[in-house]
Amino acid sequence: MSTTSINVTYRLETSGNIEALAAKIASDQSTGTFTAVPGETAEVQARCAATVVKITPLAPSDTPSIPDAGTGPYNRADVVISYPLDAVGTDIAALMTITIGGVFAVRGLTGVRVMDIDLPDAWACHPGPQFGIKGSRQLTGVMQGPIIASIIKPSLGLLPSEAAAVIKQLCEAGVDFIKDDEKLMSPSYSPFEERVKAIMPVIKDHEQKTGKKVMYAFGISSADPDVMMRNHDLVMEHGGNAAVININSIGYGGMAFLRKRSGLCLHAHRNGWDILTRHPGLGMEFRAYQKIWRLLGVDQFQINGIRAKYWEPDESFVKSFTDVTTPIFSQDDCALPVVCSGQWGGQAVETYNRTGRTLDLMYLGGGGIHGHPMGATSGVAAIRQAWDAARDDVSLEAKAKSHPELAAALAKWQD
Amino acid sequence: MSTTSINVTYRLETSGNIEALAAKIASDQSTGTFTAVPGETAEVQARCAATVVKITPLAPSDTPSIPDAGTGPYNRADVVISYPLDAVGTDIAALMTITIGGVFAVRGLTGVRVMDIDLPDAWACHPGPQFGIKGSRQLTGVMQGPIIASIIKPSLGLLPSEAAAVIKQLCEAGVDFIKDDEKLMSPSYSPFEERVKAIMPVIKDHEQKTGKKVMYAFGISSADPDVMMRNHDLVMEHGGNAAVININSIGYGGMAFLRKRSGLCLHAHRNGWDILTRHPGLGMEFRAYQKIWRLLGVDQFQINGIRAKYWEPDESFVKSFTDVTTPIFSQDDCALPVVCSGQWGGQAVETYNRTGRTLDLMYLGGGGIHGHPMGATSGVAAIRQAWDAARDDVSLEAKAKSHPELAAALAKWQD
Repeated sequence: MSTTSINVTYRLETSGNIEALAAKIASDQSTGTFTAVPGETAEVQARCAATVVKITPLAPSDTPSIPDAGTGPYNRADVVISYPLDAVGTDIAALMTITIGGVFAVRGLTGVRVMDIDLPDAWACHPGPQFGIKGSRQLTGVMQGPIIASIIKPSLGLLPSEAAAVIKQLCEAGVDFIKDDEKLMSPSYSPFEERVKAIMPVIKDHEQKTGKKVMYAFGISSADPDVMMRNHDLVMEHGGNAAVININSIGYGGMAFLRKRSGLCLHAHRNGWDILTRHPGLGMEFRAYQKIWRLLGVDQFQINGIRAKYWEPDESFVKSFTDVTTPIFSQDDCALPVVCSGQWGGQAVETYNRTGRTLDLMYLGGGGIHGHPMGATSGVAAIRQAWDAARDDVSLEAKAKSHPELAAALAKWQD
Repeated sequence: MSTTSINVTYRLETSGNIEALAAKIASDQSTGTFTAVPGETAEVQARCAATVVKITPLAPSDTPSIPDAGTGPYNRADVVISYPLDAVGTDIAALMTITIGGVFAVRGLTGVRVMDIDLPDAWACHPGPQFGIKGSRQLTGVMQGPIIASIIKPSLGLLPSEAAAVIKQLCEAGVDFIKDDEKLMSPSYSPFEERVKAIMPVIKDHEQKTGKKVMYAFGISSADPDVMMRNHDLVMEHGGNAAVININSIGYGGMAFLRKRSGLCLHAHRNGWDILTRHPGLGMEFRAYQKIWRLLGVDQFQINGIRAKYWEPDESFVKSFTDVTTPIFSQDDCALPVVCSGQWGGQAVETYNRTGRTLDLMYLGGGGIHGHPMGATSGVAAIRQAWDAARDDVSLEAKAKSHPELAAALAKWQD
């Protein structure tokens, strides 16, 4: 890690020359224009000149990532460009504009993917997670093992009173965490304030009866930070401790504003992210993306899971798990990985074995809990049994022999 | 236009069945999960059910937009899905999460591009541009003809005093508008406050001498809305009237926060946008994208130009010009089109003829002014001469016969 520069790794693809393309990007992102201009002295250039510091060739491709009139081959390489910290500073808007945004517009490339961003120590000035892994454990009271989570189902369409009834069931079923669907913010059938007022008494009532405070994450997101803060404050007033944040839908500005003023544990949904990463030759690796959002203050990061219901391959999820739990500047800037999407316990053993055999995670079952043939309580039990099996190096099938809840889940969902 | 629903048009691509994919998207974005759950009654579904309202088949493609293990053909269609306004509301974060974000994650598609978003009247609640076309004319005093603009060159690396000297030249050269490079925010060699203090006296001095107040757009962007507002306030205090906003680098939240409190004319740079639109089978059309940013308050929208130095084809620029000048709810929500990138006047006639023969635009020359062989004053003159030729249906070559500045520009830059 350099202390005086920001190093960004791009996977470049071009029918032309990679070295020339890399040099053009470095120039465009510092002082370049399409024609020579007066005043562009060596001294001026030196103040902000980006430099190509490493080129690692990759096998060329026959097909371009972006359709192209030419015939290829398309040369590929991972290129590291170094930007002086003095020229960029520590503002995320400057970082994105200088090192990312403009690169996507450069002529003559058929592919560009931001692989990683290596930030110098000066960037530790950002707040990072307020709660992270440790705080999430303290707030839920789950000091070891996975934090078992669920989401209201049906995810949309319930009136506040109907949602409250589902939450009562989930609390009684024994979950540690419940969340609004990311698509639920403040629709007319479930206005935000009414929902908070209907749900928080259920959480508190359960706490009084059992001593267990289930963490409930409300969908406080709004593109208007003032509205989002009102939502935040309402949750705080009613004794809540968490929020679902649709990070891409509020943007860096929304997140920075919220984090400075937040008392809630921020559970990030990266809805919309897929378009930036789904094509392997374009956009951005999650490794780069998640660093920015962790620095901004994400406490818990949704990253899909093994055999997710979405497009993302398992290997990508496994890498994401490592990414969010790898320190940027310190252990405290790690986010709690939230394993989710199509999860019902059947993926627990594989998840455990492929993610470094850690139990520091949130495991979120929606349909896998609500849709369990013996009911939600058995759905939660099945998931806990599956994680016990993982921890004890027992197969799910073996565990299921003495655990009917897991057996029923396997019978219903195992391929 | 519906009054009770939001209609989004997606260009879908799949090796499977388009109708089935469209139905899956509509279901996923309302109540769907991967397994049936209790409580998902018809009544609950009806509150938020999205419906497929139109499918327009397109010719299938042999190659997938996203690499795919299969062999195709890849079926394609434009699909309109209707979302109840009651389920989404009027928050941009909800719109993006429900109708855009999740769609990009759906399994089984090899391409998805958001073509358009049709918003009902309730969305007219958003502030929209504070100045727009009319306000930009009033503030610059250019009541007819194109607003001639420039940017400091070299775009980066100048000390505030050096930048001020360049600006003095540009003012004397006769431009109506000058801007910071979008990559210039507050680097250590040109801290924001020092830059404002060095530049505004030049603008004011020129105004006092000539009566003409050149509009200067400062790069106030920050991922932290509090910092951005401090920058905004500083510009206001020093008598400035405009700002460059890197819209993607601040996000919806940053923009919404700023617009509510802003007294500046907001000049949008869409740096970073390219990755969302460059692959024709993926991401988003500018038509959809720019609507959101105009509703948020963009006054002036950079949209490249004919023969831009970036990847964007001319046809795409022409469509963008139409997009930003087409009312969403009223004429007042149109943004001033900013024609830029590699412009030097040589594109004026073609620009005029391909964009509806209007002069309601800003025409921005950087290198085309600074790099003019006879100096910046002649660069500005050449551009004005080129636009006069366009307006009068005279060819550039004919006009150049009696205008040496244009003749010199043609000699240097005409292919």
